[in-house]
Order: sequence, then structure tokens, then C-alpha cells
Amino acid sequence: MAIEIPRAVRWHDDALRIIDQTLLPGEYREIDLTDVDAVVEAIHSLRVRGAPAIGVAAAIGLVATLKPYLGAEPSDFRARLADHAGRIRRARPTAVNLSWAVDRLLILAERLRDTPSRELWEALRAEATAILEEDREMCRRIGENGLGLLEPGSTVLTHCNAGALATAGMGTALAPVYTAAERGIGVRVLATETRPLLQGSRLTAWELGRAGVNVTVVTDGMAAAAMARLRVDLVIVGADRIAANGDVANKIGTYGLAIAARHHGIPFYVAAPSSTFDFKLPTGAEIPIEERGADEVRFGFGRQTAPDSIPIYSPAFDVTPAELVRGIITERGVYNPHDLAKLRRALEERVAG
Amino acid sequence: MAIEIPRAVRWHDDALRIIDQTLLPGEYREIDLTDVDAVVEAIHSLRVRGAPAIGVAAAIGLVATLKPYLGAEPSDFRARLADHAGRIRRARPTAVNLSWAVDRLLILAERLRDTPSRELWEALRAEATAILEEDREMCRRIGENGLGLLEPGSTVLTHCNAGALATAGMGTALAPVYTAAERGIGVRVLATETRPLLQGSRLTAWELGRAGVNVTVVTDGMAAAAMARLRVDLVIVGADRIAANGDVANKIGTYGLAIAARHHGIPFYVAAPSSTFDFKLPTGAEIPIEERGADEVRFGFGRQTAPDSIPIYSPAFDVTPAELVRGIITERGVYNPHDLAKLRRALEERVAG
Repeated sequence: MAIEIPRAVRWHDDALRIIDQTLLPGEYREIDLTDVDAVVEAIHSLRVRGAPAIGVAAAIGLVATLKPYLGAEPSDFRARLADHAGRIRRARPTAVNLSWAVDRLLILAERLRDTPSRELWEALRAEATAILEEDREMCRRIGENGLGLLEPGSTVLTHCNAGALATAGMGTALAPVYTAAERGIGVRVLATETRPLLQGSRLTAWELGRAGVNVTVVTDGMAAAAMARLRVDLVIVGADRIAANGDVANKIGTYGLAIAARHHGIPFYVAAPSSTFDFKLPTGAEIPIEERGADEVRFGFGRQTAPDSIPIYSPAFDVTPAELVRGIITERGVYNPHDLAKLRRALEERVAG
Repeated sequence: MAIEIPRAVRWHDDALRIIDQTLLPGEYREIDLTDVDAVVEAIHSLRVRGAPAIGVAAAIGLVATLKPYLGAEPSDFRARLADHAGRIRRARPTAVNLSWAVDRLLILAERLRDTPSRELWEALRAEATAILEEDREMCRRIGENGLGLLEPGSTVLTHCNAGALATAGMGTALAPVYTAAERGIGVRVLATETRPLLQGSRLTAWELGRAGVNVTVVTDGMAAAAMARLRVDLVIVGADRIAANGDVANKIGTYGLAIAARHHGIPFYVAAPSSTFDFKLPTGAEIPIEERGADEVRFGFGRQTAPDSIPIYSPAFDVTPAELVRGIITERGVYNPHDLAKLRRALEERVAG
């Protein structure tokens, strides 16, 4: 059964095309970006968001912003590459995919250090396309690997948006849901609205509703009551970074859901590509946590909802310890968070190979 | 040390004076009500809210709206009393304090059935003032009884607004905080914003900030991370109804906070007057839970934040089982929720005496 899944990030001619997610659910608008300031702004202000989508947007965006410099001296072109790469990398600190994608292009450029600018740019463009296509394939495999966790009539609780809008493909946490829907297996989703930026009610509800999936919105504070009073079979969330010990950084609010799921005996899964693992960090305590501006909370959506003078603590992410995670659904299979050694070896062999 | 605590509800000459809470935190406006339609509207549209404050507003409001009829025939005056009492009682049919306060005036009027109108009105006015003063005294005692839980530098996490704005006095959950502040004991408060209606960020942050208490706002989903990353010494929340077994119905989101507090070994307290106990209900499962309209979530802040077609599950309250509650702070002392027999006997003796 073909279902309609939005394309959050892609090429349009030689520009980066994204859906402007800050306008959803009120307005659907695609925008094309070719300027480095515009790419940085789009990532920083969450017009494109979600760790995998940010990686793809960074890769396509970096290549798109270099096109005007194809006629420049090779040293100038490479200086531009380094400058744009640095600026795009710094657009957001927590998601590892952003620097991973940028680094992948820089490593290629280093390998092609004697290649003329135009030829180098074509190679970078092909690499960015490969990152895009790998991301789409990654989503599809996560969908397949997570499908076994679902049965007809299952209710999945998810947080924030780890759906198609967060990737170049069908999402991570929502990939098993979409895969089930494609095969006619009806599952139900409870989407937490996810303050402060409401990616659950604005984005997850929008994309699932558009695809014909049965979805209900709850505020973040209602999730525990929903676990007690409604049927919730499992929780699946995405991840922004996973440490070597299996600790998971994800959207603020995830940790409280994991605690509530444990309290109710509901299995808690994380769905993420293997690029989300950061084996250099021994534990989640080492993951840098971005603090966002207070006004995202203070001025909810056009109206002031907290007094001017009151401080607001607003971390964008929290860390869920591995002990609360039943499994991590990756494109390579479902892993026990306490037993990541095999995944680590496989990834290291791939890098070495 | 005198601190500034707002007076949510009081007499002003012979009018009901309230702070219009729908305008906070943007605007502070007191309004004086003498017309029964205006009193009903103010209660119905949450200009005055919080179970204890509603009871006091109903009593003062009922008396205030009768003053124009002092010159009427005694039978007309009593017909007005019955009419206004019925309309005010129905302004929010679920609030138990509302009918409790109205009934108290009607019972007095019944006892004084041969009393002339002006004299009856004076007696009703004195009774409404007694309800107001008892409420203020109840708050003060809860403050004293909860004070022992606080030390200089303690951080209290609270949810929704169980402060001065919810009572005629210094609040319930916030009463120990104000009492500490009056004695120069510096404590810090973390206030969860409390979706959907944001009583935490709009009201609790406003009244504590105005009183000079150190308060920080977090979204509901940040509370668990705050427990893990900041120091939180205890949680104190209010209650809407408490069953005979100690299960507590309170604002949606309370239950998730109680689970998170247990996970972190943080004691979780409920502060409520003894009138909140409903010993007719054996457990929390029997407490009726009001479902609110979806648009409180869908149009949270004046802007649409969830698609039209998506259903929203929006219970106004949840039930926290007694096993997660360390103690219930009442005007009569701090009770173990598993051992309410003594409180029950004391309350039954009072009714019988």
C-alpha cells in the first residue's frame, strides 16, 4: 500500500531544497537554499531539524553554497570549502550527524587534494547525494528491523519528531510505523506535543495524519497518565547522540518518558542510524547538551506565557541511561544498549576497510 | 520579613474583588464584581480559579450580588438568594468547594428564616468573611506544618499553581515556601509550566517572582532532567481530591512528576486542606476525571499548534497513587497517605460535634 511520506530534504537542481518546518502545521512551504548564511540560519532556527536530516542538509547545503566559486582559484575554492564547512558545522552543537556529514566531504576533498575545483565539486556533489541515498536506505532498514516489534493494533508512544521530517527518508522512530502501514498492519501512535517547540503536535501529528496513520496528540505531562489509563504497548523515540555505554541523548522530555515507561513495564526503544553512535564518548555524561534561548518557552507561540524577569532553564536534550533502554533499532539490526561491542567492531572495520 | 503575596479574592467595600488571572502575567488588573452574571462569568472563565479561591469567591460574590435587594420584600430577597446561589453553584459544577461555600450560606439563611432582609444580609456577609478568614488561616497552618521540610537553600519543585492565586491566603503547596521566605529562610522553586493552560509559568512564576522568591521555570518535559542535573530536594504539589486510600487527583502531569521523583529518590509531598479528602471514595480509581476541550491544546498560544483533523486526549487531572506520596501536608499536620484513619476520625468528630 503506497502511503504519502514527506521529503524533508533533497536536491532541487543544484540547490538544497527543504520543507520549512517552522511553518507547519499551518503552512506547507518548500524553500531552496544556495547561500551559506541561509543554510546556517535554516539549520540553526530549525527550518530543517532532526539529526539525520541535518546531516543530509549540511552535506547538500555545503556543496550547493560552493557552486558560485567554481571559477575561483583552486586555493580560494578550498578556502571557501573550509570556511563554509566550519560555519555549517557550528550551526548546532549536539547532533553528531552534522559534523559527521561535513567531515565526510572534507575527507573526500583532502583525498582529492590535487583535483581541479569543478571536478572536486562534482565529486562532492556525488558524495552528498550518496549521503542522502544512504539516509533513505537507512530509514527503510530501520523500518524493517523494527517491524517485528509491532503487531496489528499495537499502540506506539513517540516523542518529538523522529519521522520523515527528521530524515531524508521515512524517519527513524516512525520508520517501523510507516513500514507496518505500507503492509496494511494498522498501528496507532500517541504523539507527545514536545514543548517548547511542539515538534510532536506540529510535525509528527501532521506527517502521520497525512499518511493516514491513526495518531492522537497528548501534552508531555499527559504521557504518564496515558500509560496508566490507555493501552501503550511500546515507546519508540529517536536519538541525537548515543555514547559507547548505550546512554542516549534525545529531545528534552525523553528521559521522563523512559522513567514512566519503566514504571509501567512498557518497553522503551530508541531508533537511530549507526552514525548516531559516538564511541569516543564513554558515557552520556560527556555528551554536550545545547541550552536554547529562554524565549522559546517564554513566548510560546506569539503570546507571553512567563514573566520577563523569571529565569528559564531550557536544555534542548536530556540523557536517558542505557539501563532504561530495551533496545536500539539501527539499520544493522536491533542492539541491546549494554552490548554494543559487536556494532562497534563492525563500524570500525567499515571505516578501516 | 514582610513579603508581598497577592490577594486573589477579597472584599472591597461590599463588592467581590478579584485579580483577573486570565490576563497574567502580561497585565495585573483587579476587578470588582457586584452583578451575578459577572460573578458567574468570572468563575466560569477562570478569572478566579483554584478550588479554595473559588469557594471564597462564591461566598463573597453571592453576598455582594444581593445588596441591591435589601429594600425588597423579604420573600423577594430570599427568592433572589436562591436564584443567585443556584447560578453561582453551576458556574463550575465540578468544583466541590463552590457548592460547599454556597451551601454554607444557604444553611445559615435557613436557620435565620424569620430574620429581616438587612439583618440576614449582614449575617451572610459575616459568614462569607468567616469563610475567607478560615481559608487564610488554613493556608497559614499548611505553611507552618510544611516548614519543617525545608532548609536554607532547599530547592522545591512544584506543578501548576497551588499558590496565593489559588486561595484567599498564601496558597497550599506554596505556603511552606512563603512561610520560609517570611522567616528569611532562602529557598528556591522550580515551577513546571503546566500545559495546557500554563498555570505554572503564568501564575506560579509571577506570584513567587513578585514576592522575591527565587523561581525558575521549566517545561513539563524538563522536570526529570532537572531532577537528574540540578539539585531538587523535594516536590510539593496541591490536590483537587484525595481518596480514602491516599490516592491524589491533581492537575495533569502530577503523576509523571511523582514517578520521576521516586526514580531519583526525591520525596514527593501533597499540600491540601482537609476539605480536599473525599473518604466516600475508597481509591483514586473512583475519582471522576474531567476531559477538557481539545482546543486548549490545539490552539495553545493563540496560534494553531496541531492539525485540525488529529484527535487530542486531554484529561484535566491525573491520579497519583498513595505509594508515590511521602506525606500530605494539611492544616492539621503532615499525614502519611497510608495512615489517614486518624485524620478521618478527627474530621468525622468535627462534623458530628
